[in-house]
Amino acid sequence: MMQDIEQVSLQSLLEAGNFDEARSMLIPMQSADVAEAIDELPDTYQAVAFRLLPKDEAIEVYEYLPAKVQQSLLTEFRHPEVLEIVDRMSPDDRARLFDELPAKVVRQLLLQMSPAERNVTALILGYPADSAGRLMTSEFVTLRETLTVGQALERIRRLARSSETVYTLYVTDDFRHLIGTLSLRDLVVAQPEYLIQEIMTREVVFVQTDTDQEEAARLIQRYDFLALPVVDREQRLVGIVTIDDLMDVIEAEVTEDIYTAGGVQSVGDEYFKTNLLTVARKRVVWLLVLLVTNTATSAVIKGQEDLLQQVVILTAFIPLLIGAGGNVGAQSSTVVIRGLNTDEVRPSQMAKIVGRETLAGLLLGLLLGTAVTFWAYFLERNFGVALSVGLSLIAISVIATFAGAALPFVFKAMKFDPALMSAPFITTAVDVLGVMIYLNIAQLILQV
Amino acid sequence: MMQDIEQVSLQSLLEAGNFDEARSMLIPMQSADVAEAIDELPDTYQAVAFRLLPKDEAIEVYEYLPAKVQQSLLTEFRHPEVLEIVDRMSPDDRARLFDELPAKVVRQLLLQMSPAERNVTALILGYPADSAGRLMTSEFVTLRETLTVGQALERIRRLARSSETVYTLYVTDDFRHLIGTLSLRDLVVAQPEYLIQEIMTREVVFVQTDTDQEEAARLIQRYDFLALPVVDREQRLVGIVTIDDLMDVIEAEVTEDIYTAGGVQSVGDEYFKTNLLTVARKRVVWLLVLLVTNTATSAVIKGQEDLLQQVVILTAFIPLLIGAGGNVGAQSSTVVIRGLNTDEVRPSQMAKIVGRETLAGLLLGLLLGTAVTFWAYFLERNFGVALSVGLSLIAISVIATFAGAALPFVFKAMKFDPALMSAPFITTAVDVLGVMIYLNIAQLILQV
Repeated sequence: MMQDIEQVSLQSLLEAGNFDEARSMLIPMQSADVAEAIDELPDTYQAVAFRLLPKDEAIEVYEYLPAKVQQSLLTEFRHPEVLEIVDRMSPDDRARLFDELPAKVVRQLLLQMSPAERNVTALILGYPADSAGRLMTSEFVTLRETLTVGQALERIRRLARSSETVYTLYVTDDFRHLIGTLSLRDLVVAQPEYLIQEIMTREVVFVQTDTDQEEAARLIQRYDFLALPVVDREQRLVGIVTIDDLMDVIEAEVTEDIYTAGGVQSVGDEYFKTNLLTVARKRVVWLLVLLVTNTATSAVIKGQEDLLQQVVILTAFIPLLIGAGGNVGAQSSTVVIRGLNTDEVRPSQMAKIVGRETLAGLLLGLLLGTAVTFWAYFLERNFGVALSVGLSLIAISVIATFAGAALPFVFKAMKFDPALMSAPFITTAVDVLGVMIYLNIAQLILQV
Repeated sequence: MMQDIEQVSLQSLLEAGNFDEARSMLIPMQSADVAEAIDELPDTYQAVAFRLLPKDEAIEVYEYLPAKVQQSLLTEFRHPEVLEIVDRMSPDDRARLFDELPAKVVRQLLLQMSPAERNVTALILGYPADSAGRLMTSEFVTLRETLTVGQALERIRRLARSSETVYTLYVTDDFRHLIGTLSLRDLVVAQPEYLIQEIMTREVVFVQTDTDQEEAARLIQRYDFLALPVVDREQRLVGIVTIDDLMDVIEAEVTEDIYTAGGVQSVGDEYFKTNLLTVARKRVVWLLVLLVTNTATSAVIKGQEDLLQQVVILTAFIPLLIGAGGNVGAQSSTVVIRGLNTDEVRPSQMAKIVGRETLAGLLLGLLLGTAVTFWAYFLERNFGVALSVGLSLIAISVIATFAGAALPFVFKAMKFDPALMSAPFITTAVDVLGVMIYLNIAQLILQV
């Protein structure tokens, strides 16, 4: 159960200047909850509440705060205090904060940090966005293979405070090359006089600093690890990425995938705090693209004006046909795109999967086509029109599943984002070809 | 980097009967990779490869195998071997396997298991699907608050082998009530003579056995924990859920959300191994629902046959208008549904968010409406038609964003899945109202 955050009462305590009680309310809370409580306070009280926290707790809470609040707190404080917080944040969280700050502030802060922390931060900021290097922390425990288990435990006891995790330990040689790994659990159960080299695992799964974060997230999920080591081009161990950071990566990537599929450009995870003009801008490009593709359909219909004038009722089924085609196509592209994103589907399987989906399209087309033929006949008592609608739906369903399944593979191979690119092309194929097929079949059957 | 799995060569080694080499190829690999390699072998070789593994490794690999392969391996083996594997699996993985097996096989297996394991499994199988109880393991370490740090470490050393995790430790009283928690890290850094009660945290975040798995996943993500304790109705500690299992929950839930948004009923994570008839069945219900809603549009168009006969070109813009409306509506519902699913949006914010989205719809409508008026005029040189199209698009865009933003809140309040229910209603609103508005505006402007 999440602990209840008594927001009103925290604010009223602060308003009443009852700081002792406010402090004793905050201290037993989880850092994530304290951060949320502070985030929800009016701006003027955020700094007040934050300063009530003991120093160690303050750093942790600060790391949980949204970037906006982090920044405003930075400007509220006098210098030495700011510096200490920034200096003691974990390097990966600090790098993310710096990403959001104005370059001038970052330069000032960097200059005033301790040299060791400054170097680490500058290093992390140098890696490409979305790379494992950006997400890694340099605060981990390394061991030498010649240590005994007892000596290793002693070393961990000393380093635990300044390490992000002590549950996975890394064994390096004289040149900082990663040669093995072991868990704290292995160490705790082993006899104290054993050597590290006797109990470590030599087969290490690792990533490079420039490995994509999403790939790192997939690896950690695949192997059920708690952290992944990060090496540089010379295979030297330079950092680790931990599971909590990678879970956030997965969540952000998923939101992006879902937004893309819904035709919205992602704006990070603060969508509902973005201003309205930005929101409109993030959507209008996509809508204009679809408008242009839709005008092709208008042109096709205009080309068949005579037919439609003579058999007006044909018009009544156009929305139904392109609607059904769009839905069938979206179903195929949804499963294929999700499969490609989770690596469940590999590009080499294209022929098999497109074949399978197209067959499913034929099946669905036969079912829906039959249903719609009856419905159209019932509506209009015109067998020619009803048959045209039914036959067209079969053809449209096949085209839609084929396009829906094949296009994501094609765009993936061309290094485009399948989720972004597939929909307009599927829409065009379904709408333009669909209306074309429908009106031509009708012309043939009705002999107009 | 993921280790290369030399599939071809493993299979050829097995075919050649070169088992020693096959074994030495498999042993250094990660369990997840061995499971994948076995999964990809032809059926006849899966059991052969599996039997090459040392016993401890075999259990781990078995837990990573897909349910289908787990089952076929079960039937391949003689009795005592099966039993030992099943007996030694972790209880939550075993419960998941049993879920997939025929009831008769489960009964047989349960009867032959050791009483302790049988009770645990029966207990887990008794919890509702998707509950934390189903996902929990009973293999965790509990401590008493009166133990010293040294004694606690000794106890962990003894229990480590039979525990799913030793990194989070739980403190219970005489009645198994959860009274505190601490991490192995806290224990390792503390002086050996300290008492557990001096270093444990008394504010424990926990879930109930019937808490939804998705909620447990959100909690572990929020607090950056590695495991969550699970208590029964009497607040007694009965199990823990670990982060690796919860990450799988998150991935499965996301796939389900994405599938639902794409109009596909989820079939678990083995979509591409499901047979074609099931695939068609999982989609056709949805398509039939949309067909029915679409027929309402046909009826509206049929009601305006006279108008369309006189101004056939009006037909040419119907696909464009309902297409654009559908897209605008999908954008709004995408951000709102995702926001509701990630708790970024709360039901209480409905008025604010619907207002905001509708305003965005007005903005987008003005932009797109202007663009489309020019385009329609260019195509047809008929100002009345062009103006009708443009004005309708503004109205449709407002309706679509309103419906797209409001309906998810309404369905959430009614305890329906917003992702599943919103689309057909948005489609109906946009198509039926859209076409109605368009044809009526045209009639007014063109005075037909």
